[in-house]
Amino acid sequence: MGLTVAQKILKEHLVDGDLFSGDEIGIKIDQTLTQDATGTMADLQFEQMGVDRVKTEVSVSYIDHKTIQMGFEDADDHTYLQTFAKKYGLYLSKAGNGICHQVHIERVGAPGKTLLGSDSHTPTGGGIGMIAIGAGGLDVASAMAGMPFYLPRPKILGVHLTGKLNPWVSAKDVILKLLQILSTKGNVGWIVEYFGKGVKTLTVPERGTITNMGAELGVTTSVFPSDEETKRFLEAQGRGEQWAPLEADPDANYDRIIEINLSELEPMIAQPHNPDNVVTVREVEGTPVDQVMIGSCTNSSYKDGKTVAEIVKGRTVHPNVSCGYAPGSKQVLRMLADEGELSHIIAAGFRVLESACGFCIGAGQAPRNNAISIRTNNRNFYGRSGTVTAKIYLVSPETAAACALTGVITDPRDLESKFGINYPKVDIPEKFTIDDSLLLPPAAPEEAKTIELYKGPNIVDPPSGDPMPKDLEGQVAGKFGDKITTDDIMPAGDLLKYRSNVPKYAEYVFVKRDPTFASRCLENKKKGVWNIIVGGDNYGQGSSREHAALCPMYLGVKAVIAKAIERIHRANLINFGIIPLTFKNPDDYEKIDQGDEIKIEGIRKALIDGTGEVVLKDVTKGIEIPLEYHLTERERKTILAGGKMRLAKDFAGKSFKEIQFTE
Amino acid sequence: MGLTVAQKILKEHLVDGDLFSGDEIGIKIDQTLTQDATGTMADLQFEQMGVDRVKTEVSVSYIDHKTIQMGFEDADDHTYLQTFAKKYGLYLSKAGNGICHQVHIERVGAPGKTLLGSDSHTPTGGGIGMIAIGAGGLDVASAMAGMPFYLPRPKILGVHLTGKLNPWVSAKDVILKLLQILSTKGNVGWIVEYFGKGVKTLTVPERGTITNMGAELGVTTSVFPSDEETKRFLEAQGRGEQWAPLEADPDANYDRIIEINLSELEPMIAQPHNPDNVVTVREVEGTPVDQVMIGSCTNSSYKDGKTVAEIVKGRTVHPNVSCGYAPGSKQVLRMLADEGELSHIIAAGFRVLESACGFCIGAGQAPRNNAISIRTNNRNFYGRSGTVTAKIYLVSPETAAACALTGVITDPRDLESKFGINYPKVDIPEKFTIDDSLLLPPAAPEEAKTIELYKGPNIVDPPSGDPMPKDLEGQVAGKFGDKITTDDIMPAGDLLKYRSNVPKYAEYVFVKRDPTFASRCLENKKKGVWNIIVGGDNYGQGSSREHAALCPMYLGVKAVIAKAIERIHRANLINFGIIPLTFKNPDDYEKIDQGDEIKIEGIRKALIDGTGEVVLKDVTKGIEIPLEYHLTERERKTILAGGKMRLAKDFAGKSFKEIQFTE
Repeated sequence: MGLTVAQKILKEHLVDGDLFSGDEIGIKIDQTLTQDATGTMADLQFEQMGVDRVKTEVSVSYIDHKTIQMGFEDADDHTYLQTFAKKYGLYLSKAGNGICHQVHIERVGAPGKTLLGSDSHTPTGGGIGMIAIGAGGLDVASAMAGMPFYLPRPKILGVHLTGKLNPWVSAKDVILKLLQILSTKGNVGWIVEYFGKGVKTLTVPERGTITNMGAELGVTTSVFPSDEETKRFLEAQGRGEQWAPLEADPDANYDRIIEINLSELEPMIAQPHNPDNVVTVREVEGTPVDQVMIGSCTNSSYKDGKTVAEIVKGRTVHPNVSCGYAPGSKQVLRMLADEGELSHIIAAGFRVLESACGFCIGAGQAPRNNAISIRTNNRNFYGRSGTVTAKIYLVSPETAAACALTGVITDPRDLESKFGINYPKVDIPEKFTIDDSLLLPPAAPEEAKTIELYKGPNIVDPPSGDPMPKDLEGQVAGKFGDKITTDDIMPAGDLLKYRSNVPKYAEYVFVKRDPTFASRCLENKKKGVWNIIVGGDNYGQGSSREHAALCPMYLGVKAVIAKAIERIHRANLINFGIIPLTFKNPDDYEKIDQGDEIKIEGIRKALIDGTGEVVLKDVTKGIEIPLEYHLTERERKTILAGGKMRLAKDFAGKSFKEIQFTE
Repeated sequence: MGLTVAQKILKEHLVDGDLFSGDEIGIKIDQTLTQDATGTMADLQFEQMGVDRVKTEVSVSYIDHKTIQMGFEDADDHTYLQTFAKKYGLYLSKAGNGICHQVHIERVGAPGKTLLGSDSHTPTGGGIGMIAIGAGGLDVASAMAGMPFYLPRPKILGVHLTGKLNPWVSAKDVILKLLQILSTKGNVGWIVEYFGKGVKTLTVPERGTITNMGAELGVTTSVFPSDEETKRFLEAQGRGEQWAPLEADPDANYDRIIEINLSELEPMIAQPHNPDNVVTVREVEGTPVDQVMIGSCTNSSYKDGKTVAEIVKGRTVHPNVSCGYAPGSKQVLRMLADEGELSHIIAAGFRVLESACGFCIGAGQAPRNNAISIRTNNRNFYGRSGTVTAKIYLVSPETAAACALTGVITDPRDLESKFGINYPKVDIPEKFTIDDSLLLPPAAPEEAKTIELYKGPNIVDPPSGDPMPKDLEGQVAGKFGDKITTDDIMPAGDLLKYRSNVPKYAEYVFVKRDPTFASRCLENKKKGVWNIIVGGDNYGQGSSREHAALCPMYLGVKAVIAKAIERIHRANLINFGIIPLTFKNPDDYEKIDQGDEIKIEGIRKALIDGTGEVVLKDVTKGIEIPLEYHLTERERKTILAGGKMRLAKDFAGKSFKEIQFTE
């Protein structure tokens, strides 16, 4: 049977499971990327795994998120990351070198490889023909240590591209169209794979824009074939030897196919407050605009920057609009500067912001209240810009440039008809300027041993979990209602600066809901009493914030019992040795209260046997409540060991099948 | 008798007092500048003055301080400033146009004019032959409304420059040398005036660097003559017609003269934690460096940027150093980009930061703990970088570039001897690139009437003060010890975002010392009881933070009684109608306590008569305490009226002499 590109790469890397049956598969990871907001914790976890050098082909630690540096914490983290990378065999991309995904596709990624990154937009690498997946920091640390990565066995969603984009329509419009079709929900477990004659018409950076924002579909990843275009891009990057052709077999089987005719697309826009709230730009044109921000890992390539420069050349942005441009990498910035393109952007009145994530992650450039902000990034969630009343619209660089010039939402095609601007069709250059001076190589193994890690006072070794006890005896430390988000559990904002300091950050678990939760848990922990969290429906929804499991683990939380637990948070709980349990009868939620003394006898044996159910004795109330769990063998073993890190330490070098637990 | 340049300009603008006798003089202000951190409050105060258009020749509102924009407050302020400028006749320099002092000297300042700015580095304008003075926002608002500005009658400190700077020695080294000689203390009331043959060897931007950091001497301002160099600069800026020659008379009389032979200077460095802790670079060379930051209003000119670019051209910064470059203006950035110089800076590995104040004011780029940070800005106070353990050294751009390349503190002259780099002697260009598209002009008067001011929820009309009552009856709302700083009174940091919202910000007066101070004051205020603050020695030291008087005024504080009150804070108290009193016998400080009911009978009559003393009755203790005040007639009238703003409103159009108060 023919295979798709994704299936070919996965097959090549398969170390556990079956591509065509079962729940999950384990794959070998060739490359990893971490960024500074998630990387410090990943690196600290790696340190505890007892491995003296990364086992991947190449791992890169990027500094691109917290580059504003308010307070010492960020710079301390950067220095730690630099010493860690040098010692443990990673490349270190210094602040100023650019956004991880942009740099990775330029300088590191290669067709046919697997990439695991502790950033949700890691799928950008799919543009160059990789299986590139975003994951939690601990998963990436494990991959750095040579362990396989487990993912749900993927279904393949083929996107059949035909035709060719018209002038003023660009890659961003392709993915916005797909978001309009598929929405951001219901796509879990799929891999999106592009094929068809339309593929050839898209350059690698354009493909990167499409796979990047595939993250918003909620799929595992997105991937393009590796073809002559890929070769041309790699050669222009001086990496032609890393090219390998990769195409779906003619008889490849897709689980679903969507047709997109590129010739029929027009400029699209995602309205507030969701990336799938997509309409044509034409439908909302004329709306006054207050801010235009161009950049982010989605749209910060050389092509994007040069296109904007050529559009605004000799013109001036509207006086009522605050316009910013953040290049995606040092390579992009330097080439635009060398070629005089940056001058056009500056002259037009754009604020030139650092080559970093910046506005896209709410790190600066918060708009005024009720502002209309037009941005080229990938998410427009409520409040993400830093201003809760602001309305964020997501567009292509072409549309953003048009809005900057006119001061209203503008279909960029009107620039040609009304302003006489010809569409600047920008190709990739024959040769990119290659300068990796901010991409520091690791030390040779001998020198590495002598390198001391720098750790500021806010960088604290993360705790490791405890094995599941025979019987779980504890107390209900907190009871919460429906729709508890990871932000309720582990507030971010200013507190995010404690991300490298679990004991400190843990003091703030549930602080907005129940300010004494953390201190109660720590007191129980001191007495040897396990803490239990009881939740309602959709417990743990929101982001993939790992600390919402890691910090409770530190507080001695060993079980979460809820009506339903959200998918990603559930995975994080397992990774940190906390068992996710659900009520067999949801009405039992009412019977149990905060402070109740509880006991789950034989929980360890139940996990070993994989019974799928346990009984909770509420000692205080004198009642019994039946509970369920749905865990794969790998997940049960992870919890039994006390979490993924503990598993890695206690059973180094063993496969899951080999690991056995006793009562 | 011959006059100096400063005396000539002051004489031309004198509206009150005598240049050669008396305590203070009042001068007409031709130009004002405000920046966004101080400008919102100044503009709100101006609104209350009942003037429909600024009365100056030109006023510019700059946005350069809070450009990171974390949260809606900054962008709301920017939008308010933009609508205010358009309505009231000011130019608005948008974010991205650059740092106020750099842009002002490029595009606005002119020889012989007076400039008042709500930023302490306003004296930069002295480089172009202006009397340019930094002041509180209310003083600048008053100047915008056409009122004279009062300053201590100045003594003139002549700095006689001879010789010519050697290669690798630059303007920054001149002012660092002067700081070494004069220190930052004991220079209050002086104007520094440069003269002699050495003046001609310095370009206007170099002179601007010297007058800029004259602020650190604590003098009123610094000034250079206006000569052929000034003409050349203005012509290159397309403003030749604004040139006027201005030189000291041959028989001009300086109150003191310091000799500096430029030929004898060598690269200097200010060590932590004071700008006057100056030694030669040679004395500390070899110290490892963690961070290099180039920019700020002191050293961000075209010459500075190009010099750095030419030094680092074709080289790479040391891997252990995080290097940043922030251009001073859009003009600088664009010209460096056009000429390929920016490419050298990017290629060398500098992070290109926005053209704004940034790192200099602790807005980003906080170094790691215990870092050695080499910076070209003007202040290296403890903690100002955002990292209290960091050690900040102040140097020239030449020295900073040398440190960036070598990774250790390096005398830039070694670049020539050891690295073969020739000194890039950079002159001003024949023509600067002129593009004022981000410097928005005001609306014409007719259109101005129709403009609505934008005010976000955090922008609140400031309170105005109350006239001094006949008898002051009140309570000691708080008693504090020695060395209370303005930061103790009115904490900044995150709270600074409330700067445009006095009622909100006032909730935090003394919050770190006495969390219930503000609520106690507000309760007294509700009951019609005045609040009194009792302080020890050096009360109000630190910054010129106006809110440390404005917010207490809002809380109903009417008198501060201390052993000694710091000069700038004293002036601010007066501006906001709070009488600064001192103990005749400092030991009496011990006799009075928080909560005491007090009464100062006949305080109003005492101020009208200028008795210099009053008697405080401590009703609770049943004792009398003699107090003193030292106030000029203008200051007494300001307090009687209820502060400067109230005076402006109640006595619009009258001179101080004409204003009379009755009991």
